[in-house]
Amino acid sequence: MRQIKIYQDLMGENDRWARETRELLAGHGIVMANLIGSPGCGKTALLEQLADRLHQTLRFAVLEGDIETANDARRLARKNILVSQLLTKGSCHLEAKLVHHALRDLPLAELDLVVVENVGNLVCPAEFDIGEQVKIAMLSVTEGEDKPLKYPLLFREAGAVLLSKTDLLPHLSFDIDACVANIRKINVDSPLFQLSSTSGAGVTDFFAWLSNLRLTS
Amino acid sequence: MRQIKIYQDLMGENDRWARETRELLAGHGIVMANLIGSPGCGKTALLEQLADRLHQTLRFAVLEGDIETANDARRLARKNILVSQLLTKGSCHLEAKLVHHALRDLPLAELDLVVVENVGNLVCPAEFDIGEQVKIAMLSVTEGEDKPLKYPLLFREAGAVLLSKTDLLPHLSFDIDACVANIRKINVDSPLFQLSSTSGAGVTDFFAWLSNLRLTS
Repeated sequence: MRQIKIYQDLMGENDRWARETRELLAGHGIVMANLIGSPGCGKTALLEQLADRLHQTLRFAVLEGDIETANDARRLARKNILVSQLLTKGSCHLEAKLVHHALRDLPLAELDLVVVENVGNLVCPAEFDIGEQVKIAMLSVTEGEDKPLKYPLLFREAGAVLLSKTDLLPHLSFDIDACVANIRKINVDSPLFQLSSTSGAGVTDFFAWLSNLRLTS
Repeated sequence: MRQIKIYQDLMGENDRWARETRELLAGHGIVMANLIGSPGCGKTALLEQLADRLHQTLRFAVLEGDIETANDARRLARKNILVSQLLTKGSCHLEAKLVHHALRDLPLAELDLVVVENVGNLVCPAEFDIGEQVKIAMLSVTEGEDKPLKYPLLFREAGAVLLSKTDLLPHLSFDIDACVANIRKINVDSPLFQLSSTSGAGVTDFFAWLSNLRLTS
């Protein structure tokens, strides 16, 4: 019994920081998206594309979540966008408090959108509210059609689902219709984008959707 | 302070089950390997190859760890090998107690090797001892060269490292030498196998290593 109580306390603290973050962002009219997917599914590559294509039209910043190294933040800093590195030092997901403190150090008055790249992990990040407006689930086509069924929480909660690395489809035995059907078993109506940061296919549609997100709360 | 104490209690219970599992396996002369990698890195496909190639020469069973669905166990059951499905029901890693109970239901006197396919996750499974003799880290070449540095715990603890999906290398901008160098920064001397379950390249060497594992404790 005691273990359960303590766990609730911990989540309670996380949820309190998430709530404060929502208030902070609402005060500045900023949308925050929480990008979640496996290691190597292409999260950073997609954000590099976002920086290349929209840095002059969209006022955005990136918070890079990693267990160790600042490699991803360095990749994005080369693009001359605002980026901060959040190191979890062993933890498999971002928590709201760390995100909140990183946000406080950003020039919020100059921003419309913050994209948080969570730690590469299809499981745990989906369990922790970081104060985002929307979770975005990212699945690379190299990972297999069945993953939405095996890791349903993220796909259920996602406000958009990205199927990435579609340039590799000719080299894989991946049934994209079966994968989409599996996603739809879990999540009936969130928009679904098939895209490739390598070829550029599909990214424009996703970036248009992302740019048009409006604060609702 | 209280949070830390409770966490240690929980780990203590896990470690107690892991210890009992080691005694159980030692009593039967069974080696247990804990296969860990991201969702879709090719763990189940490799075990299908193992079943196809070694079911007549190696007495082995598979424990399939998943959050939900018994899809992977069904895939392996078609190969006529001993397989059990362990469902974590939301948890991002296998714990020792569940593994222990599944082992107790296997015909241990008839086995030399048990391979546990952990939940698809490059982070949390590495933190939980399940009583295995060896952890095997699996990284697909689609995931990028930098992952050993970003998720070092697993690669540090691994008794062998597998680089999978090498058949896709011609279609990727993946620098395999850089990846191997990154692995060697974390883990100097564990054997490293480059392989593809699709083409069959490299799997023989890994299976020979796996078959020759001997109980040491």
